[in-house]
Amino acid sequence: MSYARQLLDSDPRDFNLDAKVLAATIDALSDCAQACTACADDCLSEPQVAELVKCIRLCLDCSDICTASLRVVSRQTDYDANLTRPQLQACVAACNSCGDECQRHAGMHAHCRVCAEACRRCQQACTQLLTAMT
Amino acid sequence: MSYARQLLDSDPRDFNLDAKVLAATIDALSDCAQACTACADDCLSEPQVAELVKCIRLCLDCSDICTASLRVVSRQTDYDANLTRPQLQACVAACNSCGDECQRHAGMHAHCRVCAEACRRCQQACTQLLTAMT
Amino acid sequence: MSYARQLLDSDPRDFNLDAKVLAATIDALSDCAQACTACADDCLSEPQVAELVKCIRLCLDCSDICTASLRVVSRQTDYDANLTRPQLQACVAACNSCGDECQRHAGMHAHCRVCAEACRRCQQACTQLLTAMT
Amino acid sequence: MSYARQLLDSDPRDFNLDAKVLAATIDALSDCAQACTACADDCLSEPQVAELVKCIRLCLDCSDICTASLRVVSRQTDYDANLTRPQLQACVAACNSCGDECQRHAGMHAHCRVCAEACRRCQQACTQLLTAMT
Repeated sequence: MSYARQLLDSDPRDFNLDAKVLAATIDALSDCAQACTACADDCLSEPQVAELVKCIRLCLDCSDICTASLRVVSRQTDYDANLTRPQLQACVAACNSCGDECQRHAGMHAHCRVCAEACRRCQQACTQLLTAMT
Repeated sequence: MSYARQLLDSDPRDFNLDAKVLAATIDALSDCAQACTACADDCLSEPQVAELVKCIRLCLDCSDICTASLRVVSRQTDYDANLTRPQLQACVAACNSCGDECQRHAGMHAHCRVCAEACRRCQQACTQLLTAMT
Repeated sequence: MSYARQLLDSDPRDFNLDAKVLAATIDALSDCAQACTACADDCLSEPQVAELVKCIRLCLDCSDICTASLRVVSRQTDYDANLTRPQLQACVAACNSCGDECQRHAGMHAHCRVCAEACRRCQQACTQLLTAMT
Repeated sequence: MSYARQLLDSDPRDFNLDAKVLAATIDALSDCAQACTACADDCLSEPQVAELVKCIRLCLDCSDICTASLRVVSRQTDYDANLTRPQLQACVAACNSCGDECQRHAGMHAHCRVCAEACRRCQQACTQLLTAMT
């Protein structure tokens, strides 16, 4: 069981959101942030780095946006939907752009295939959390 | 002249966005991220910290969202409006929520007054950049 | 299998460091960064928040330092021990300070107990990676 | 006057460190974090990107380490030298590695010249703060 789940289970509060959906989103954001940082670095080491510039740029953005979203979603005190919702929407958009670009290189580079998968899973998790929020 | 402006001026590329508006947004995001981190910490040291919990939480969120937005906006290679726009919109929302809450404590705490001002300036800069993007 | 491990396994390069130790450190840093963000937030919601100010502050620092260390360690291209080593040493120090403080509240607050455990595991993982680097 | 200075001046507390040195370090860290993010992106857009891979990697690391250090130093509540000192030392090391590499490309790329300058100024500010701490 992940620390995210343990922390949510140890919390005596009623959450604004389903703890299981929340923990899954936290884990997906955490995984995606790391996968994007690593994929940008793996792209940098490829001989044909010049063809991967767009992929590197989107991975860097997606990692930064997932990291911020992860932190916002990990906080439950004085929850503010007006702030959380647009941040999750920005994260869905980032995972979508980055996932599409990584998918284009998935046949050529295993790191892009793994990263595309992390982006897709994160995009789905954030979308599910947004639905649970309404 | 800020480093942001120097870096943009030293760049031979044509930007997708007006360099002056861009540099002003970068500086406002940088200032707001720092002010929110410092204000959350100043709130923590107040004797009546229990009354400032919502302010601390929003400052932490706003700092994380400004930091991610700052990085996204600082990148100009293979610019992707589908990702940049929602992130700036999330930043406007965060600055609005955090600025409102800090404003409520501005008469009592000078750090909340300074932070509310940084949030307002950042919200305006991001809104202006969003307008320039359309 | 974590994405960190999949990404390292999909990488054709020889690493400067053992892939298994590296993946374990990446996962521990990722878990600790999230646990510290969540614990700071849980502390903020406690009625006796004033007694947890030091714990909140150290959790915020530890989360920031683990996040930076996670990103540095996730990069393997043009590895620079002169930069990686002191950052890992700073991370060991942060996990130590934060783990000690959380441990003091572990009997009272389950979130501090879980966070102290995440800090200890991260401290050990970074120490092990530092040993592997020499 | 920067927000960092305004926030420190509005703070009724006695600091552990000289407010002027502290504000200068905060501004230098903030500038360096942004300059490194922008320089990594500018390098990505250069035709000879393959020759700038090491520079990009170090800029990304240095930006992450400066951002974490900026946040730690911006917090004054329950100050812990055992954590702050090694993080500043890691930041000095990162600015040194990144500044040296950017300097090597300074004649060729204006963005590397500006970034090298930001790294040097940040390295000096952190060193000065470390001296003030003893």
